[in-house]
Amino acid sequence: MIPRYTPKEFAELWSDATRFAIWLEVELAACEAMESAGLVPAGTAATLRDKQLTLDSSRILAIEETTRHDVIAFLTHVEELAGSPARWLHRGMTSSDVLDTSLAILLVRASDSLITRLDGLVEALAKRAREHARTPMIGRSHGIHAEPTTFGVALAGHLAEIKRGRLRLQRAREEIAVGKIAGAVGTYAHLSPEIEERALARLGLRPETVSTQVVARDRHAAFFSALASVAAGIERLATNVRHWQRTEVGEAEERFSAGQKGSSAMPHKRNPILSENLCGLARVVRAAVLPALENVALWHERDISHSSVERMLAPDATATLAFMLDRARSLVEGLVVYPARLKENLDRTGELFYSEAVMIALVGKGLPRQRAYEMVQRNAMQVFHGNGVFRTLLGQDPDIGAQLTPAELDECFDLEHALRFADELVARAIAS
Amino acid sequence: MIPRYTPKEFAELWSDATRFAIWLEVELAACEAMESAGLVPAGTAATLRDKQLTLDSSRILAIEETTRHDVIAFLTHVEELAGSPARWLHRGMTSSDVLDTSLAILLVRASDSLITRLDGLVEALAKRAREHARTPMIGRSHGIHAEPTTFGVALAGHLAEIKRGRLRLQRAREEIAVGKIAGAVGTYAHLSPEIEERALARLGLRPETVSTQVVARDRHAAFFSALASVAAGIERLATNVRHWQRTEVGEAEERFSAGQKGSSAMPHKRNPILSENLCGLARVVRAAVLPALENVALWHERDISHSSVERMLAPDATATLAFMLDRARSLVEGLVVYPARLKENLDRTGELFYSEAVMIALVGKGLPRQRAYEMVQRNAMQVFHGNGVFRTLLGQDPDIGAQLTPAELDECFDLEHALRFADELVARAIAS
Amino acid sequence: MIPRYTPKEFAELWSDATRFAIWLEVELAACEAMESAGLVPAGTAATLRDKQLTLDSSRILAIEETTRHDVIAFLTHVEELAGSPARWLHRGMTSSDVLDTSLAILLVRASDSLITRLDGLVEALAKRAREHARTPMIGRSHGIHAEPTTFGVALAGHLAEIKRGRLRLQRAREEIAVGKIAGAVGTYAHLSPEIEERALARLGLRPETVSTQVVARDRHAAFFSALASVAAGIERLATNVRHWQRTEVGEAEERFSAGQKGSSAMPHKRNPILSENLCGLARVVRAAVLPALENVALWHERDISHSSVERMLAPDATATLAFMLDRARSLVEGLVVYPARLKENLDRTGELFYSEAVMIALVGKGLPRQRAYEMVQRNAMQVFHGNGVFRTLLGQDPDIGAQLTPAELDECFDLEHALRFADELVARAIAS
Amino acid sequence: MIPRYTPKEFAELWSDATRFAIWLEVELAACEAMESAGLVPAGTAATLRDKQLTLDSSRILAIEETTRHDVIAFLTHVEELAGSPARWLHRGMTSSDVLDTSLAILLVRASDSLITRLDGLVEALAKRAREHARTPMIGRSHGIHAEPTTFGVALAGHLAEIKRGRLRLQRAREEIAVGKIAGAVGTYAHLSPEIEERALARLGLRPETVSTQVVARDRHAAFFSALASVAAGIERLATNVRHWQRTEVGEAEERFSAGQKGSSAMPHKRNPILSENLCGLARVVRAAVLPALENVALWHERDISHSSVERMLAPDATATLAFMLDRARSLVEGLVVYPARLKENLDRTGELFYSEAVMIALVGKGLPRQRAYEMVQRNAMQVFHGNGVFRTLLGQDPDIGAQLTPAELDECFDLEHALRFADELVARAIAS
Repeated sequence: MIPRYTPKEFAELWSDATRFAIWLEVELAACEAMESAGLVPAGTAATLRDKQLTLDSSRILAIEETTRHDVIAFLTHVEELAGSPARWLHRGMTSSDVLDTSLAILLVRASDSLITRLDGLVEALAKRAREHARTPMIGRSHGIHAEPTTFGVALAGHLAEIKRGRLRLQRAREEIAVGKIAGAVGTYAHLSPEIEERALARLGLRPETVSTQVVARDRHAAFFSALASVAAGIERLATNVRHWQRTEVGEAEERFSAGQKGSSAMPHKRNPILSENLCGLARVVRAAVLPALENVALWHERDISHSSVERMLAPDATATLAFMLDRARSLVEGLVVYPARLKENLDRTGELFYSEAVMIALVGKGLPRQRAYEMVQRNAMQVFHGNGVFRTLLGQDPDIGAQLTPAELDECFDLEHALRFADELVARAIAS
Repeated sequence: MIPRYTPKEFAELWSDATRFAIWLEVELAACEAMESAGLVPAGTAATLRDKQLTLDSSRILAIEETTRHDVIAFLTHVEELAGSPARWLHRGMTSSDVLDTSLAILLVRASDSLITRLDGLVEALAKRAREHARTPMIGRSHGIHAEPTTFGVALAGHLAEIKRGRLRLQRAREEIAVGKIAGAVGTYAHLSPEIEERALARLGLRPETVSTQVVARDRHAAFFSALASVAAGIERLATNVRHWQRTEVGEAEERFSAGQKGSSAMPHKRNPILSENLCGLARVVRAAVLPALENVALWHERDISHSSVERMLAPDATATLAFMLDRARSLVEGLVVYPARLKENLDRTGELFYSEAVMIALVGKGLPRQRAYEMVQRNAMQVFHGNGVFRTLLGQDPDIGAQLTPAELDECFDLEHALRFADELVARAIAS
Repeated sequence: MIPRYTPKEFAELWSDATRFAIWLEVELAACEAMESAGLVPAGTAATLRDKQLTLDSSRILAIEETTRHDVIAFLTHVEELAGSPARWLHRGMTSSDVLDTSLAILLVRASDSLITRLDGLVEALAKRAREHARTPMIGRSHGIHAEPTTFGVALAGHLAEIKRGRLRLQRAREEIAVGKIAGAVGTYAHLSPEIEERALARLGLRPETVSTQVVARDRHAAFFSALASVAAGIERLATNVRHWQRTEVGEAEERFSAGQKGSSAMPHKRNPILSENLCGLARVVRAAVLPALENVALWHERDISHSSVERMLAPDATATLAFMLDRARSLVEGLVVYPARLKENLDRTGELFYSEAVMIALVGKGLPRQRAYEMVQRNAMQVFHGNGVFRTLLGQDPDIGAQLTPAELDECFDLEHALRFADELVARAIAS
Repeated sequence: MIPRYTPKEFAELWSDATRFAIWLEVELAACEAMESAGLVPAGTAATLRDKQLTLDSSRILAIEETTRHDVIAFLTHVEELAGSPARWLHRGMTSSDVLDTSLAILLVRASDSLITRLDGLVEALAKRAREHARTPMIGRSHGIHAEPTTFGVALAGHLAEIKRGRLRLQRAREEIAVGKIAGAVGTYAHLSPEIEERALARLGLRPETVSTQVVARDRHAAFFSALASVAAGIERLATNVRHWQRTEVGEAEERFSAGQKGSSAMPHKRNPILSENLCGLARVVRAAVLPALENVALWHERDISHSSVERMLAPDATATLAFMLDRARSLVEGLVVYPARLKENLDRTGELFYSEAVMIALVGKGLPRQRAYEMVQRNAMQVFHGNGVFRTLLGQDPDIGAQLTPAELDECFDLEHALRFADELVARAIAS
């Protein structure tokens, strides 16, 4: 999580202050649940809440220098501030009851914020897809011109993919919205399932089915996988922007702000740096998945090897993805599309992309498929080497003339027909 | 996919023969749908089906040597075998219409087979968890004795985790059960959404929302992530078996078959090699996730970089996970548990694990938490260094005696109480 | 290791037959060393060699079904074939003495074969780099035209990178050329360092400095990292071929063989599928690095979790890289370069790439850098938007005219000057 | 790079202030080299140095808000501070000339600091290995007791591995000590190889063989791989400490500082948290390798996708490894070893580990290996099941008695003999 790639909201979310504040929320929620169960004097949590404690993060960290234990340092500090009633906090609990429940709250908040950002990107993509639903573009496979599509259909594909990422993140949020207040090895030795359920409900969480000392880490691994999946969707979009913007293609480009400079050496450069940046950041988000999966196999009822990984990668991966989503939305919103250039590129291969229509027409006349393929290919190769116009050559080929009338050939060369489902595809993505 | 780690079913699933047979199924389903749309003469598919073609994989591969294109080689071979009606196959389709739809069928079949195996593992875990729901075991965090739990609760935790993996795999199966018959760049230039839907329905698939030349690869990435998640759950189980079996712990061990030899050098060795093997294989399955994520960002309407990755990793990851599931189930079924050793280990730390109960009792008497902690810890440390019995030392500590009567102290030393929720936890995992 | 991506040599290298043959070599080398030390009757190895045993892999695998231990199965089979003298084999050794020493031999052979292939690629790159050392090409950053370079310089960059990969692989080969014959936990309990050294020397290996039951796995991790590094270099080359070949660029393309078909639907397509394939395979090779790194932290004097990883990934990664190297070499050798198209693209941006030369000339006249930048950029932007010719506009700009004479401006527009170091760069790569 | 895991030195190394200061160093070194070549007025760099500019990082970042280009922002600020002579800076250079050369300097400094830390760990391991060269310990494979080794030999294995990591890091340092001052696409359009070489030499760097706009990223990938390799070595060490410390083993433990608390719930706990932490951090360092490898395949003469990855992962991976090395050294220095417990564990399996010696003796008498194996195993299994003492049972076995005299049997039970090479192994690691 470096400032450059961290939205302010995430810098706050992952701050010491927020973390300690949430720890306190968790302790108080547990305390209240224990009051209901008669384990703690009624009103303890209310008394503590009334004190409106202002936790001092630096003091907690200083205490930790000695105790080498973060939750004990925190509790010591709370007792410093709140005095005697604080001794009821954490009764029968283990550190992970606080830490894992708090982590769940943080990840839920992160998820909600990410989903809001995803919605922004979805909206931007939908708008631009609709706008360009009928803007013809040459479709490319292997970087080679294939058959026509539209710019809007291309965006619709990205839209549908991003929405699938949203669904995965939504499900991961549900999986991660799980805490535990079950004691040292998850057996409720000094607690009960009822206390746990009541405390977690107040915090918007459900109880882990069977915890050890911690919430099971397969949930977190699934969460990081979902983040990486969204990032990969953005990477595909950004990769395509980079292709569209390259000098020879020039079909679309990132908005270039006033004052922006493309190069310290070359004043004329306008580079797709936002998109390249998104591709790099996708690698970073993706890289969190394997450590998260390695974190699953903790020893016995837990070891703490997962903790350092999560301390580093949970902020990094969520904040970076948030940054990516913001950047991707503004990229899409500001994307400058050049329909004239799209048309120019479409025309570049001399309508070779109608070759399949011709081949189908020939097969429809009864020719074996491979024979039709060869008849079309030999003419296509002429065009490819700059010798003639495709429609003309086909018209002059006696083998083809023996099968198709000029009118039938003309029917094969119909852009409107080729793109007749473009609106439907865009609508499908929006409805998905 | 090496023979050693490949169930027979998966060797067949990923064979050339199966692949080509499914390609034919896809072509015929598409052909039938085109018949309904009037694009192909009625009865074509039926005629072809009646021929009961026996595809010759080696012939197809030989043709591919020349064409350098697998689907064209396949179609050429079908035409060799079936003659003229075969020319109607593949009308308006692109190779990926066949390939991606077929891959979806293969992955769905793989998923179904994996889920069946998962159910076997779930059943085995449930059975053993119930069996040992009340078998006491020392719970360990950091490899250090913590508080008591039961062997059944430990298995229940694994059970719940494996079931979550099952849910993820089920969802991934839904995501991957998507084909496309939409032509070169997904625009249905010579096809229609109706044809696609009808053909895919016959194959048990849904249409991609918006395809390019291919089905979007975020679906496959999610699928591989789900596999890795299940593998990580097995890795945790296997890691714990390795711990339970180690000489000094000896609480459970893998069934050692007659004739099996543990070591070429040391006749007395009985090693948890199945579990170690599962840990290694989890690394292999996990390693497929990043390439799958890298596959998402194909260029424009597709490039073919994903293909080699999938050719290698789809068989590898699914077959290896299937092998893991079989092995894990038989590991769990055959696991030899030693309750006497479990008890012996539980007693090893002189009941220090009741320290928290004592601490809570002290806090209940009104002591500040940190003071209670220190009073208990100083006695615990004596025991830890071999100087005395915990219950006795506590009884002799005047500070503690000032707070707790001997009867109150006794109440803290109650194993039954500590484990009173074990059955509930096992039941929860089974019900989850 | 699937047939499609496995050179024949590697299929043989990683076969059961080769593996068992090497095991026998290792056992015999160890036996001879023990003869020298007087631990085994002199002449035992010679007697066994004279028998010219033909090992039956399927028989060994069948025995393993019962023993569940591969080396014991192997030894049992050798004893079946060779009778009484075979009992002297494996004296004081542990399975890993055979397995790890054999793995080292296999990896050394794989390395040597890879290095030979690397040399082929190096030679091809050097030849083509020399050929095109002076073929002008527009250099691109961010996919946007920057300043001129040459096609040969671009290839020279790839050449230098591949040669660095070769060096890393050479070093990794040295690191991996290490065996062990040191007994169950590496202490030579029934052996000696001298025996080990003598046996390994005969096999072309050095002894592990301090082994456990196995050779340390950091060596193997370094080996896989080196493979991935070479693969990444090929990926960069292949990525650039894909760019050069894309329809709008068209500067170079893969050789298209007679009979090859680009698309089942579009007869005119010529796709860079070899290069795309290489990009996918690089992902596969790269994915072996993390499991190899995870393999390092074996428990105590070893566990066997690394074994399954290596059984799958060592053949996969080495064979795949061998395939990549062969394919990359033939790609480079056959690459069709289009100098006319290179020139056409170079001219596409109206010589804007001379803007920096102009800026430097202006600064040389005493202008502040940022002022010079802005003077050039405003003219460049005109050209970029299609309004005029760069050289002309600059000549007409009074601010620029106040600084530079027409002759001085002309000097800035000199391609020869811009490319004057191209030959030197190519020579540097070849000499590196 | 989070404060918790970042040594102060690395926080400074990766600060904005250090980065900008190094940029200035690079610009001045280039300026001086250009003075020698007559491209810049003599004395310019000296004049600028004399000004002793104090760069204001926040001002640079503020300018970047507008320019969206970091190096231009930096140069603008330098010109603000230094006035007219600053216009000579960056002549003919591209941003990456500064950025990549500076990154090389930062990574070299990071490497040097890491190597110093490695030396500390090496020294600590050597000291403890010597100290415990003759402290017997049971060697374990698969977590199961195998044959005796010594605690010092175990440490010596770690020592040798860490030293191999050091060698790899040293080599990676050499690979990364490479800058470029070669202009927009590496052709020295407005520069020369001589200028580059002179400038880089002053900075302690060599020139990239053939650069594009940037230094080739395979160098950086190799660097990150070397970091991960060192981290994996530490992970193995830390994993073993965790095993040694677990309650049932208890052979060694981390130093527990006064005031430290093991658990918020259980006062008696002393957990190997430093080691667990090291295992987690190894996952983090390892995770940087794949993004670094993905960074290699930049498009054409460069794209900027690598930049965000390096901004995040270069500080993270180097600082985290530095932290790990410091922690590992203090872990080793403070490791509390319990020889009595080592002896107790060694004796736990009733001397079964001498079984191989007996088997060898039997084979030496002429028995077939498999027959000897079975004779020993049946007695070993008796002992394993708690029925008798190994030496005694063997003495009573008539088959064995027929082969070995009691004195010959006694010779097989000799710990001194088993450990006779321990000192040599420790010495070998230290000398390696």
